[in-house]
Amino acid sequence: MAEERLSISDVLVARKRITGHIAPTPLRVSHWMSDLSQAEIWMKLENLQVTGSFKYRGALNALTFAKERGYGKVFTASAGNHGLGVAEAARITEREAVICLPKNVAPAKKQKLERYSVHLIEHGDDLEATEHFAMRMAQEKKGLYVSPYNNREVIAGQGTVGLEMYEIVPKLSTLIVAAGGGGLISGIGLVAKVINPKVRIVGVVADASPTLKNAIQSGRVVHTVQQETIADGIAGNIDPDTITFPLVQEVVDEWVAIEERDIRQAVFDFLEHEGMLIEGAAAAAVAAISAKYITFKPRERVAVVVCGGNISRNDWRQIVGDELLSKSSKG
Amino acid sequence: MAEERLSISDVLVARKRITGHIAPTPLRVSHWMSDLSQAEIWMKLENLQVTGSFKYRGALNALTFAKERGYGKVFTASAGNHGLGVAEAARITEREAVICLPKNVAPAKKQKLERYSVHLIEHGDDLEATEHFAMRMAQEKKGLYVSPYNNREVIAGQGTVGLEMYEIVPKLSTLIVAAGGGGLISGIGLVAKVINPKVRIVGVVADASPTLKNAIQSGRVVHTVQQETIADGIAGNIDPDTITFPLVQEVVDEWVAIEERDIRQAVFDFLEHEGMLIEGAAAAAVAAISAKYITFKPRERVAVVVCGGNISRNDWRQIVGDELLSKSSKG
Repeated sequence: MAEERLSISDVLVARKRITGHIAPTPLRVSHWMSDLSQAEIWMKLENLQVTGSFKYRGALNALTFAKERGYGKVFTASAGNHGLGVAEAARITEREAVICLPKNVAPAKKQKLERYSVHLIEHGDDLEATEHFAMRMAQEKKGLYVSPYNNREVIAGQGTVGLEMYEIVPKLSTLIVAAGGGGLISGIGLVAKVINPKVRIVGVVADASPTLKNAIQSGRVVHTVQQETIADGIAGNIDPDTITFPLVQEVVDEWVAIEERDIRQAVFDFLEHEGMLIEGAAAAAVAAISAKYITFKPRERVAVVVCGGNISRNDWRQIVGDELLSKSSKG
Repeated sequence: MAEERLSISDVLVARKRITGHIAPTPLRVSHWMSDLSQAEIWMKLENLQVTGSFKYRGALNALTFAKERGYGKVFTASAGNHGLGVAEAARITEREAVICLPKNVAPAKKQKLERYSVHLIEHGDDLEATEHFAMRMAQEKKGLYVSPYNNREVIAGQGTVGLEMYEIVPKLSTLIVAAGGGGLISGIGLVAKVINPKVRIVGVVADASPTLKNAIQSGRVVHTVQQETIADGIAGNIDPDTITFPLVQEVVDEWVAIEERDIRQAVFDFLEHEGMLIEGAAAAAVAAISAKYITFKPRERVAVVVCGGNISRNDWRQIVGDELLSKSSKG
């Protein structure tokens, strides 16, 4: 039996499940980006979400669903924001969580997970191998495997970002959302298109890892050569059969691929103008505006999702240091 | 007729007036400061308040009061956070605001105020002269003068920070609050001492401008020699007859004066560990913990008020640049 298509009602159920635990993050005007673009730019600050990224929403919805269905154990593979989201959600829902990490996981990322009482297992040379291992373990141990994006409850959870934005600013006509596996943009898109069928949804990828953009252009998920990017939250290849693919096909109106130097510049500029450090994936979405990849109707209302703040110590120090040094040598 | 003593009920009235306009800012655990201190450190993030500082609370309460009393015009003297708070509050309450600035006002500060439709008047060589001018104008024009701290409604408005903290974490046993004119610490203190009479309230001043600490030690407001500090929000001399003085005398249990290098280091460390740029006054309060000016009972619940995020471009660039440069030359 094919499952029903995901809809806004799944997002409303998700919201009911996660309200009271997630932070209703601010939606704020950016004077900086508004002045640049002549549009009215609103920032949805998911960098201020619990665990520092929107991923907590989907993870908490999925783990609450696991609790409702009587799963004691959940499994996932992620060294990043999804892993942190699952770890915090496991604490709240009192589930046992097994988080599989690739062997080459960055020590700083592992340390963040070690704050939680979750089981960490290092296995596999890359995230794909680690994912397969986690799925197999979930089957063997009769637990629930929670993919970072290829999962109905995860997508519905991310969609709550869309509900919150439209509650504060009902007339948003363009939404700008970074996309890796596509969970966030699918969830927000299916909410937004119901509320305003004419809304323009812009998908943002890193030019160094344009997986989902390539997939849409090819009509199917194709293997994409990956280059280095600081936008690790939206980098990498994805499941060929991910349920986000048809959703993204339907809800995303256009795509932009942001060059690495523009992502880095947006990290610096956001710090300068908005006072916060954001991670590469969030900076890619910001750069779509600040580096003028897209244009707007004068004064139209635009929201950009600042999806996370978990940038590594090395990355921000290098970006900020380079910028301050180059400015001081010019001045 | 002497006015009644300010009490928690004034703060409750203030809250009723300003709710719906102010941001109910997050109260978050800092793992960084908790690990450092062995206490449970919560941060009240007023750097995320509308206008970037708690000052909007008091200003909005005062201007709503002005509206209730039929004052069409309000006057103040401030180039900083109070000025911004009054400007935004004037927009919301539809009052005409005249903001007087010293002639030597920093262009960046003036620019921020110019975003609003307020009257800016440059007069006087220092803030004291500017204040006298603004007060005189208010009298002449039959408007209401709104001091940044020597004003009942302003103090009551700042007190709403205290209500919000105790609603989230009822068992706070120590509060750490930066103090310039003393509006914030008076307001928070009179709330906190009612809710928990045993609470320890720590007043934080910049060592370069320890005005209120000197006043308490002297038993009256005395002229204090001022040195340079990046904590401009809590720097300067204050009204000898300010109504905050007896309040502060009553509610503050101990005082610390933070050295300039510790304030600067706290700006950097807060960025590194919490991902946000904060202004000097907020960094002084943070430094009371991070530079170990005070000690705590193991695991006691502590809140530090991160009172604002409006640090100048020059200041943060210099602090962060110096730190990154010194680290790279060491490494």
